[in-house]
Amino acid sequence: MAPVSGPGDDMYALVERLYPLCRSITGDGVRATLEIVGELLPLTVHEVPTGTQVLDWTIPQEWNIRDAYVADADGRRVVDFAASSLHVLGYSVPVHRTMPLAELRAHLHTLPEHPSWVPYRTSYYQPAWGFCLAQETLDALPDGDYEVRIDSTLADGHLTYAEHVIPGQVADEVIVSCHVCHPSLANDNLAGIAVATYLARALAEGNPYYTYRFVFAPGTIGAITWLARNADHVDKVRHGLVLACAGDAGQLTYKRSRRGDAEIDQVLRHVLAASGRPHRVTEFTPYGYDERQYCSPGFDLGVGSLSRTPYAGYPEYHTSADDLGFVSPAAMADTLAVCREAFAVLDRNRRYVNLSPYGEPQLGRRGLYDALGGRSDAKQAQMAMLWVLSLADGEHGLLDVAERSGLAFDTVAAAADALCGAGLIKA
Amino acid sequence: MAPVSGPGDDMYALVERLYPLCRSITGDGVRATLEIVGELLPLTVHEVPTGTQVLDWTIPQEWNIRDAYVADADGRRVVDFAASSLHVLGYSVPVHRTMPLAELRAHLHTLPEHPSWVPYRTSYYQPAWGFCLAQETLDALPDGDYEVRIDSTLADGHLTYAEHVIPGQVADEVIVSCHVCHPSLANDNLAGIAVATYLARALAEGNPYYTYRFVFAPGTIGAITWLARNADHVDKVRHGLVLACAGDAGQLTYKRSRRGDAEIDQVLRHVLAASGRPHRVTEFTPYGYDERQYCSPGFDLGVGSLSRTPYAGYPEYHTSADDLGFVSPAAMADTLAVCREAFAVLDRNRRYVNLSPYGEPQLGRRGLYDALGGRSDAKQAQMAMLWVLSLADGEHGLLDVAERSGLAFDTVAAAADALCGAGLIKA
Amino acid sequence: MAPVSGPGDDMYALVERLYPLCRSITGDGVRATLEIVGELLPLTVHEVPTGTQVLDWTIPQEWNIRDAYVADADGRRVVDFAASSLHVLGYSVPVHRTMPLAELRAHLHTLPEHPSWVPYRTSYYQPAWGFCLAQETLDALPDGDYEVRIDSTLADGHLTYAEHVIPGQVADEVIVSCHVCHPSLANDNLAGIAVATYLARALAEGNPYYTYRFVFAPGTIGAITWLARNADHVDKVRHGLVLACAGDAGQLTYKRSRRGDAEIDQVLRHVLAASGRPHRVTEFTPYGYDERQYCSPGFDLGVGSLSRTPYAGYPEYHTSADDLGFVSPAAMADTLAVCREAFAVLDRNRRYVNLSPYGEPQLGRRGLYDALGGRSDAKQAQMAMLWVLSLADGEHGLLDVAERSGLAFDTVAAAADALCGAGLIKA
Repeated sequence: MAPVSGPGDDMYALVERLYPLCRSITGDGVRATLEIVGELLPLTVHEVPTGTQVLDWTIPQEWNIRDAYVADADGRRVVDFAASSLHVLGYSVPVHRTMPLAELRAHLHTLPEHPSWVPYRTSYYQPAWGFCLAQETLDALPDGDYEVRIDSTLADGHLTYAEHVIPGQVADEVIVSCHVCHPSLANDNLAGIAVATYLARALAEGNPYYTYRFVFAPGTIGAITWLARNADHVDKVRHGLVLACAGDAGQLTYKRSRRGDAEIDQVLRHVLAASGRPHRVTEFTPYGYDERQYCSPGFDLGVGSLSRTPYAGYPEYHTSADDLGFVSPAAMADTLAVCREAFAVLDRNRRYVNLSPYGEPQLGRRGLYDALGGRSDAKQAQMAMLWVLSLADGEHGLLDVAERSGLAFDTVAAAADALCGAGLIKA
Repeated sequence: MAPVSGPGDDMYALVERLYPLCRSITGDGVRATLEIVGELLPLTVHEVPTGTQVLDWTIPQEWNIRDAYVADADGRRVVDFAASSLHVLGYSVPVHRTMPLAELRAHLHTLPEHPSWVPYRTSYYQPAWGFCLAQETLDALPDGDYEVRIDSTLADGHLTYAEHVIPGQVADEVIVSCHVCHPSLANDNLAGIAVATYLARALAEGNPYYTYRFVFAPGTIGAITWLARNADHVDKVRHGLVLACAGDAGQLTYKRSRRGDAEIDQVLRHVLAASGRPHRVTEFTPYGYDERQYCSPGFDLGVGSLSRTPYAGYPEYHTSADDLGFVSPAAMADTLAVCREAFAVLDRNRRYVNLSPYGEPQLGRRGLYDALGGRSDAKQAQMAMLWVLSLADGEHGLLDVAERSGLAFDTVAAAADALCGAGLIKA
Repeated sequence: MAPVSGPGDDMYALVERLYPLCRSITGDGVRATLEIVGELLPLTVHEVPTGTQVLDWTIPQEWNIRDAYVADADGRRVVDFAASSLHVLGYSVPVHRTMPLAELRAHLHTLPEHPSWVPYRTSYYQPAWGFCLAQETLDALPDGDYEVRIDSTLADGHLTYAEHVIPGQVADEVIVSCHVCHPSLANDNLAGIAVATYLARALAEGNPYYTYRFVFAPGTIGAITWLARNADHVDKVRHGLVLACAGDAGQLTYKRSRRGDAEIDQVLRHVLAASGRPHRVTEFTPYGYDERQYCSPGFDLGVGSLSRTPYAGYPEYHTSADDLGFVSPAAMADTLAVCREAFAVLDRNRRYVNLSPYGEPQLGRRGLYDALGGRSDAKQAQMAMLWVLSLADGEHGLLDVAERSGLAFDTVAAAADALCGAGLIKA
C-alpha cells in the first residue's frame, strides 16, 4: 500500500474505511460513521428520540439491519446485503418469505440502462421492502421460488447527528454541513464527509475570526432536526456551505444560496474565478442537498453548496458505480484547497471605516511608503492602500475592494492590516 | 361566402360590417359602431356634452356628415365621400362653393409617394375643410372650376364612448382599451375593436379573478374623457392593455408601460417569449395610442400596448390601403390567442406566503407526492411545488416562480393550487 | 511666427510662456505661473503659511531655487538647471560640494530605457538632493571629481493657489481643478491649465446657471489645502472636473467620479458618445490627479477627470519628452470643445415637474404646434415636448429625457423651454 502522504491520501483512506458501512437516516451505520470521523475530529454526537417533532417533520423509528438476501432453491444467495449495503431498499421492513420470482419482481429494483449497476433506493416514510440488483443478475434468475429475508428492525430509537465547533474571535458562525445518510456511495457523500473533516482540521490550526460549526447529519431530516433544535441560534449563522459530491473527476460547481448575492456567493465566485480553475457557478434551486433546508424562506441563510459534478449530474449518481474508483485523492484535495482558499477570504472579509476620510491621509509620514519601499510588490501594496482607504466607507468589504481594484485579495487584506495598524481605518 | 367557423372569421365579419362607417372623435359613426359591437357584447354607452371640461381638454362640438364631393364642370363627382369615408378631411366645416382647381389645391391632400392611395387626414381643433384623394386622381383633373360640397354639421352635441365590465372576484381592475374614432381603416383600429370584443366574450366565460373593464372610446379625447370621469376610480386599475393595429400580417409587438416593469409588462414579455412566436417588445414612448394618456405621469398606470405592426410602422398606415385586404382572420385570431394567454397568466399571478417556511414541509404525508405519483409530469409538478414553497415569501408572484424555475406557468400555478389546498401557502 | 488665430493657438501660446518656469508645490514658479494666467483671467491668489494644518497634512516649507549644476573638473556644466527645470530633483535641499562620480551617482536619476530623455523626480517630504539627466549624458561622463551645486532654499513661506469664480444664477457650484505644480512638462499640466483658462473665459461669456469655480493649485497638497479651507463650502459643490494631460494627440479619456453615476459622469459619457469622437470612459481609481482628493470618501464629490491620454499612460509621461512638441493647438482646442459641450449640457440639465400631469395637455390650443409647424424639425420638437412632459416627474433630468428618447439634448432643452414658457412644467 502506498504511504499516506497528503490530505488527498488521508481523505481517500477515510472514504475507504467508511465505504462498507450501511448508513441510513437513522441507525448504527450513522453512529459507526461518526465514530470513525470522531477519531480525526472531536465530535459532539446528538441523539434525538423517535417521535420528536422537528419543524414540520417527526423523527421516524430507527432502522437497523443485520442481514438480507434473496436465495434460490438451492439456498444460494443470488442477492446479498453482505456484498453491498446497496442491495437492500433503505428502511425495508423485515420480511422472511418464500415466493415465486413473478411475485418477487415487484420488490426488485434495477437499472435497465446500466445493466451491471445496482441502484440505490429508499422508502423512509412509506413501509415497504425491496432489493436492488443489477439488471444482469435479474436477467439470469430462473423462474421458481426464492427465499427472501430482510433481518431488519424498525423500532423507537434515535436520529443521530454530530457537530464539531472551532471557536472563533466572534460568536458569528460559519456552518459547513454534509449529509451522512447514504450507504456505500463514495462520492455521495463520503468524499464530502472527508473534505469536511480535513477542512475542520485545517481551520483549527489558525485562529479564525468566525466560529466554524461542522454539521454531520442525515440528509433532509437531519438538517431539519439541526435547524429545529437551533432555531434560536440560527441568527448567529452568517455564512454556510453544504459539501456534497466532492471527490469525482468533474470540475467544481458552486451553487448559490437562495439569496443569490450572499457574501458566501461572492466569495466562492471570486475564489473560483481567481484560481483559474475551470468551474461552474449556478443559481439556487430548491432541490439538491441540505441547502434546501438552510435556504428555506423562513431561514433564508447565506448558505451555498460546493460540489464537483453536482447532484444527479452524472450517470453513476445513486448507483453502485459511485464506488471507490469514482473518487480520487487528487479531486478531494482540490475541493479541500478551494474550501480553504474560500474560507481564508471569507474570514478576512471585513468592512472598514476610514478614520481619516477627508482627502488622502499622508501615508509617507506614517512610514507606510518606506516600509514597502524595498519590496518588488511595493506599487501594488501602495495601490491597495489607496483602494482600501477609498472604499473604507462601511459599505464595501475587502473582497469588494479586491474585485473593484483588480488586486489580489491577499494584497488588499495586507494593506488593510497595515492601515489598521497605523490607525487609519477600523473594522 | 365561406362559413364563419371560428373567432378569426367572426372577428373578420365584424370588421367588414364596421368598415364603411364614417367614424370620428364624435358623431353618429361612433354611435353606429358601438351599436354593432353592442350586438355581440352588452355595452354601457356614455354621452358627454360638448363643452365639458375633461382634464386639460374640452369636449368639442359634435361633427356629423351626410355627404361630400368635388364635382367637375359636368357635375361628375371626381372625389366622393360616398365611395370612402376617407375622402373628406375629418371634422371638415361645411362648405359649398365653386372654385378653380388652382384655389382648390390648398384643400386637397394626396400621397405622392403612393399615387393610388388616399390619405387619412383630420383637423379636429382648427376649423378647416378639405378632401383626401389619390395623387393619380388629382393628376388627371383638368384645370377649370369645380363644385366642392361638404354637407357636414358642427354643433353642440356629445362625445360618445362605451364600456363593458366583466365582474371579477375582486374589485381590482384590468382595463382593455381601444380607439373607435378612425373611419374606414381596417387595421387601425377595426381589428383592435374586433379582438377586444371577442376577448371580452372569452373572458366572460371564465370566473376571472380581476374585474375586466373594456373601454371603446375615441382616441386621445376619449381616453382623456374616461380618465377625467373616472379619476377617483383609477386607483382600482391594476393593469391594462391598449389594443391597436391588431390584424395585419406582421409579428406581434408589445410596447411596455411607462413604468417599464409593470406586471403587465412582465406577463406580455413572458407569454410572447414562451409562445415561441417571433415578436418584438419595445420600450415605452409617449407617442402612439391611448397608452399615452393612461401612462401620463399623473396616472402612470401599468398599461401597455399590444399591436402587430405598430403605430406608423407600415406604409399603409393612415391610408386607404389599410383596407379589408390588409387584415386577416388568422392574424386577428393570433392576436386574440396571445391576449387570452396573457390574461390567463395575469389573472392567476398571485403572490403567496409560505405558512410552513422553516425547512421544507413534509409533502409526502400530505399526499402531495402520492397524488402525483402516477403522472408522467410528476417530477415537474414536484419541482414546481418546491419552487413555489421556496419563493412564497410575499415578494414573488407565480410568474416570477415560473421564470426563475424555467417551469411552465401552468405547472407552477397548478402546484400553487395544490399547496394552497393543503394549507401550506396562502395568497 | 504664425498669427494667433483661435483658441487652440491662444492656448498653445500660453503653454509656451509657462513652459520654462520651474514650478513645484510651493515657491515663486507657481506665483509666476499664476501671474501669467492672471493676465487672461482675474485670479484670487491665496497664500497659506508653512506649518498650517490642512486635513491630515501640514503645509511644508517653501522651496525656491536660483541655480543648480554639476560641473566637471574644467568647470564645464555637464548638467545645468538653466537648460531645463527638470534637471534638479524637485525640493532638493541646498548642496555645494565636490565629489567623485562614484559618490555622485547615488544622486543622479536617469531613464535607461529612454537614454536621451530626462526624467522628472521630486522628494517633497524627505530631505534629499539630486539631479535628473539623460542616460546618454551620464554615460559620457568620465570618472573624476565633479562640483555639484544646488542653490535652493527651503524656508518658512507659503503654499500658493488661485481661484477664479464665475457667478451663476444659483450658488450651487461646479469646480474645475488643475494642478500647477509640475515644472517644464507641457501636457502635464500646462495644457490642462491652458484649457481651464480658456474654458473659464468662454463660460464667462454666457449667463451660466451654476456658479463655476476654477481652482489652480499644486497637486495633492494644493487640492487638500483648498478642501481644508473650504470644508464648510464643499456642500455647495454639485459637480466638478479635474483637467490634466489635455493636449496630447491621444483620444479623450473620461474617468468617472468615485460615485460612478454622478451627474457629471452621465454628462461626459453622453457628450463624448454623442460627439462621435473616439474616446474612453474609465472607472474611478483612487490614483491619478486631484480627483483622488475631491472623491475621498469623506467628501465623495461628483468630480470626474478629463484627459486625453491619461495619467502615466504614455512613455513621455514625467519626462523631458513631454515638451512643447508633445502638445498641439488642435488637441487642446478639441479638449476645450468637449468641455464646453459638456458644461452646456450640465448647465441646462434641470429636473422639471409636469404641472398638467393627468393625461396629455392640449398643446395645440397653446400654440405649441403652430409655433413649430413651419420648421423642418417640427416632428422632433413635438416628440421632445411629449417626452419632457412624460418624464417631468421630478425624477428625470433633461439628459435622462434625451437618452431615453434618443433625441438630441438641445432639442429636448428647447422643448423644455417652450413648455416652461407655456406654464406646463416648472423646474
